[in-house]
Amino acid sequence: MLRSIGRQWRCSAALQCRCLNSDRRQQPLAPSSVERALSTSVGQQQVKAQQQQQQQLQEQQQQMHKIDEEVSRLLALKAKLGGDAAPTNQKFTLKTPKGTRDYAPQQMTLRQGVLDKIIQVFKRHGGEAIDTPVFELKEVLTGKYGEDSKLIYDLKDQGGEILSMRYDLTVPLARYLAMNKISSIKRYHIAKVYRRDNPAMTRGRYREFYQCDFDIAGTYDPMLADAECVKIVAEILDTLDIGDYVIKLNHRQLLDGMFEACGVPAKDFRAICSAVDKLDKSPWEEVRKEMVDEKGLDGDTADKIGEYVRLSGGKELVEQLLSDPKLKAVPNAVKGLEGMQLLLNYCALFGLESRISFDLSLARGLDYYTGVIYEGVLKAEPGAVGSPVKASPVLENGKAVTEQGSGGTVGSVAGGGRYDNLVGMFDPRGKAVPCVGVSIGVERIFAVLEAKFAATKVKLRTNDVEVYVASAHKGLHEQRLRVLNQLWDAGIKAEHSYKLNPKLLAQLQHCEEHQIPLAIVLGDAELAQGVVKLRDVTTRQESTVPLAELPNEIRSRLKE
Amino acid sequence: MLRSIGRQWRCSAALQCRCLNSDRRQQPLAPSSVERALSTSVGQQQVKAQQQQQQQLQEQQQQMHKIDEEVSRLLALKAKLGGDAAPTNQKFTLKTPKGTRDYAPQQMTLRQGVLDKIIQVFKRHGGEAIDTPVFELKEVLTGKYGEDSKLIYDLKDQGGEILSMRYDLTVPLARYLAMNKISSIKRYHIAKVYRRDNPAMTRGRYREFYQCDFDIAGTYDPMLADAECVKIVAEILDTLDIGDYVIKLNHRQLLDGMFEACGVPAKDFRAICSAVDKLDKSPWEEVRKEMVDEKGLDGDTADKIGEYVRLSGGKELVEQLLSDPKLKAVPNAVKGLEGMQLLLNYCALFGLESRISFDLSLARGLDYYTGVIYEGVLKAEPGAVGSPVKASPVLENGKAVTEQGSGGTVGSVAGGGRYDNLVGMFDPRGKAVPCVGVSIGVERIFAVLEAKFAATKVKLRTNDVEVYVASAHKGLHEQRLRVLNQLWDAGIKAEHSYKLNPKLLAQLQHCEEHQIPLAIVLGDAELAQGVVKLRDVTTRQESTVPLAELPNEIRSRLKE
Repeated sequence: MLRSIGRQWRCSAALQCRCLNSDRRQQPLAPSSVERALSTSVGQQQVKAQQQQQQQLQEQQQQMHKIDEEVSRLLALKAKLGGDAAPTNQKFTLKTPKGTRDYAPQQMTLRQGVLDKIIQVFKRHGGEAIDTPVFELKEVLTGKYGEDSKLIYDLKDQGGEILSMRYDLTVPLARYLAMNKISSIKRYHIAKVYRRDNPAMTRGRYREFYQCDFDIAGTYDPMLADAECVKIVAEILDTLDIGDYVIKLNHRQLLDGMFEACGVPAKDFRAICSAVDKLDKSPWEEVRKEMVDEKGLDGDTADKIGEYVRLSGGKELVEQLLSDPKLKAVPNAVKGLEGMQLLLNYCALFGLESRISFDLSLARGLDYYTGVIYEGVLKAEPGAVGSPVKASPVLENGKAVTEQGSGGTVGSVAGGGRYDNLVGMFDPRGKAVPCVGVSIGVERIFAVLEAKFAATKVKLRTNDVEVYVASAHKGLHEQRLRVLNQLWDAGIKAEHSYKLNPKLLAQLQHCEEHQIPLAIVLGDAELAQGVVKLRDVTTRQESTVPLAELPNEIRSRLKE
Repeated sequence: MLRSIGRQWRCSAALQCRCLNSDRRQQPLAPSSVERALSTSVGQQQVKAQQQQQQQLQEQQQQMHKIDEEVSRLLALKAKLGGDAAPTNQKFTLKTPKGTRDYAPQQMTLRQGVLDKIIQVFKRHGGEAIDTPVFELKEVLTGKYGEDSKLIYDLKDQGGEILSMRYDLTVPLARYLAMNKISSIKRYHIAKVYRRDNPAMTRGRYREFYQCDFDIAGTYDPMLADAECVKIVAEILDTLDIGDYVIKLNHRQLLDGMFEACGVPAKDFRAICSAVDKLDKSPWEEVRKEMVDEKGLDGDTADKIGEYVRLSGGKELVEQLLSDPKLKAVPNAVKGLEGMQLLLNYCALFGLESRISFDLSLARGLDYYTGVIYEGVLKAEPGAVGSPVKASPVLENGKAVTEQGSGGTVGSVAGGGRYDNLVGMFDPRGKAVPCVGVSIGVERIFAVLEAKFAATKVKLRTNDVEVYVASAHKGLHEQRLRVLNQLWDAGIKAEHSYKLNPKLLAQLQHCEEHQIPLAIVLGDAELAQGVVKLRDVTTRQESTVPLAELPNEIRSRLKE
C-alpha cells in the first residue's frame, strides 16, 4: 500500500503552477487532472527493498511539506486579495453549525442543575477540577482513537502549529499528567468535546457536546479506584433520578483472553473487539457477519465468540468461567476473571449488587482501555412508550447510541474504564501513570430531563430576581433608580422596566410571567411619606413599608 | 485599490497544475513564481468604469471559489496519502498550543471563586444564562471585527460547512437573537473565545481566554440600560476587591461628531477612531503620526482632534463641550453630548460619581459600537512597584493591553458599549434589536489575583473532602470501604488511600497536606466494640464514636 502511495505522491507534489499568466477564461481549470494523472501512474513502479520504502517515505514527507507551503502561500494570497472580507448584507442561512445548538435560558437552568448535582458527587469523592484548551496539537490526538480518528475536527493551517479540537477529555488529561509529571490525581473535568460524527439531533446526538469526566490516576492496589468509579456512576444516576439503570461491567484482559481462547489472531483483537462493541445496537448475526466478511475471521471462531458474548450475570458467572476449560488455559482470561471477582466483591461492599451486571458483550469502542470497562445504561420503563428512547442521545466515550438495545435497555448514560498506558504514550521515557475513569453522558441526561419537563408543562424559572421595582404613574424613573440602587447595594436581586413610563399593569404582568415573588410599587403619595408599597406577586396582597427598612423587610419576606 | 487587486487575482487563479507528471527532482518547486508573476502584472491594466469593477469583483469571487476547491482537493489528496496518520511513538514537544494553557486545580479554585462572584452580580440584575457553540459558520463572523478579522481561527475544510472559532460572545449573541427572533433579553454568557493574537502569556495575554459578558437587548428609553451596565462593572470590581479603579465613558456619536467638526472625511471615521483607540498605550505624538502618515489625515485636522482627546472630566466637561462653537454646529456631537449628560445623571443616582470619568480619548477597537462606550481600568496602586502591572493581561473586547497607560492606570478589566445595528445585520429583513453590554476581563482579574495569592503564600484548598478514612494497621481495607460507603450515602465528602495497607503516618500526612479537617482511624480493637476513632486533623485530638453515629457526629463537628 505504502509503495504505490509513495509513487502517487511524487506526481501530485510536482505541481508547479507554470501557467500563471494565462487567461483564466481561455484555459478553464481542469481540476480532476491531478487525480487522473495519479491513478494512471499507480502500479507503474514497484519498489522492492525496505530501504527504498524508507527513502520514499522521507521524500513523501518532504514533498507534503512543500505542498503545505504552497497551499498556505495560495491561501495567504487569497487573503491579501480580500477573500475573507465578505460583502456587507451578505445573505446566508441563519443557523448554528451542523450538529451544534444554542442553549436557551431554560436549557441552561436545567443543565446547570444537572451539572451541580454531578459536581456534588465528584466532590464527595475528593475530586479536584482542571481545565485544558479546547484544541491540542494535532499530534497529541493522533493514534489514540482507532477507527474514530476520522471524526476529529482539524483547524485550518494559518501558519504556526497544526491543531485539532479535543475529541474527549481523557487524552488531554493524559497529556496534562505527562507534561506536568503528575503521578497521582483525582480530577474532574466538565467541558465540551468535538466529533465530526453524523449528528442525529432529534435524538440528542451532537457534534459539540458536553463531557463530564472523573478520573483517578496513580499507582494503587487493584480495583479499589475502579470500584469507586462504579460507585460514582451509581450515586450520580441515583441523585439525578432519571429512571432505573444497570451498570454493565467487563474487562479488556478477559476479552483478549476470550479472543485468544477462541482462536482469534492477536493482531485482530482490536478489530474484533470493535465488532463486539456493536452488540448493543446490532443483533449477533450482523456482528458475526462483520467479523467474518469484513474482518476475515474464521466462522467457527466467530461462533465460539458468539457463545461467550451472550453471557451476563454476577459472581456465579465469574466462577463458572474460571472453571471453563478453554478460558482457564489462557493466562489473560484468568487474570481478567480474577480482576472481575475482586471488583464484584468491592462493588458489593458499596451496596451495588442490584445495580451491576457482569456482561461479556460489553467491549467499548476506544483503543486505550486496558482493564475494567463499564457502562451505565438506562432501562426502558415498563409501559412508558419510548419515553427516554425518543430522547436518547450520544454516549460520551466514543460510542454510538443504543437505539433500543437488547434486554429492555434504552441507552448509555455513563461509561469508562481503566487505561494504564495512555499517559506513558506522552512521557518521553514512557513512564506510565495508571488511570481509571468515568464519563457521564450528560447530553443524554439533559435530553431525558428536557423531555420530562416538557411533559409536566412546569415552567422553569430562568432568573433569580427577588423584587421588581415598579412605577404606579409617570415621572418616577429617577425614584426607581434610587430604590434599585439601595436594593442592589444591599445584595438584593432586583430589576425594573427600562422604559421611562411603563404601564403598571405591564409591570405586574412581567412579575407574574417571570415568577418574581415580590414587587415594589412607587407612587408620589407614598414617597412623600417616605414609604412604598410592597406587593406579594402571587397573593397580590400589598403592605406599606418605610423606604429605609426595605432591604430587611424583603429579606424576611423571602425567608418565609 | 480594488482594481489592481482584481487584476492580481485573475493571474493567480489561473493556476493550472499542468506539469503533474514531471519529475519533482528534476524540476524543483519555484514557490515565489506566483508572487513574482503577480507583482509584474500589477498596474498593467486600469479598469475605468464602476460596472467593470463590479464584474471583476464577481469574477474574483468565482475564481476564489475555484482556488478553494483546488486547495481542498490537494489537501484531500494529501490526507489520502497518509499525511494525517502519525507514526506511533512519534516524539514531539509536550505542550499546549501556543497562547493557551491548562488550568491546574489551584487555578480552577481561584477561577471558580471569581466567576461565582461575577455570576452573583449578573443574577442580581436579572441576568439569564445562555450558551452558544464554540464555532460559528464563517460568514457569521465575517465583516464584524474590522482590522482584527485576521485574528479569527478558521477550521479546516473537511467537507461540509466552513467554520470559524468564536472571536467574542457578542456576535454569537446577535446571531442567536436574530435567529430566534428574540427582541428582548438580559443574558449573561461565560465562555472561552479565540484570537490568533500574538500571545504574551507572562502578562496573561492568551489566544484562548474567558469572556464574561452581560448584555441587555431590547428597545428601551435612552441610557437606562446603559447606566445599569456601568453599575454592574462597578459592583463586580467592588466585590472582587482587586484595587482602585475608574470607569471611563465616551460616546461613539460624540466621537463621530468630533471628527466631523475637526474636518475628518466621513469615510475615515472608523480608521481614525481605531487610531484614537491606541491612546491608552501610545503617546499622542505616535497616534498623530499614524493619523497623518498612515491614514492620510491633514496635519491641522489631527491637531484639532488632539485637543479634544486630551479632555476628561464629568458633567462640567459635557456642558463646556455643549457650548463649544465647533461641536455645537454638528448634530451628531450634540446628540452624543446629550446622551452623556443623561448617562452621567443616571450614574450619579447609582452612586457612581467618584468611579466614572467622561474621557474623550476612549474609542474602543470594535466596529460595531454605535453609542455609549466604557472601559473599567485598574489604577496603579501608589507605592506598589508594578504589582498589578506585571500580571496585566488582555482586555477582552478586542483591545490590546495597557502596559502602563497615562494617568497611573494599569489596564482594562472591563469594557463594552452600545451596538444597535449588529442584530439587524443578521436579520433577513434587517430588523434591529438595540443592545448594550459589558465584558469583564476575567483573565486579567485571574492574573491579578494569582499574583496576590502567590505573594501571601496561602495555599488554596482544591478539594472539599470533609473526612479521611484511615487504617491503623493491615488488613482493614474492606472495613474502610464499608465505612466510606456509609459516609457517602449520608452525603459526607470522604476519601481514603487506594492502597490495601497504607502506613498510618502517610495517611495522616495526606490529611494535613490537603487540609482535610477530620480523619477516622479504624482499628480491630475498636471495630470489635462497634466504634472508631474520630481525629481532628489540626488539633490532633481523638475521640471514640460509635459507627452508627458517625455521620451525625461528623456533621456536628463540621458545623463548629
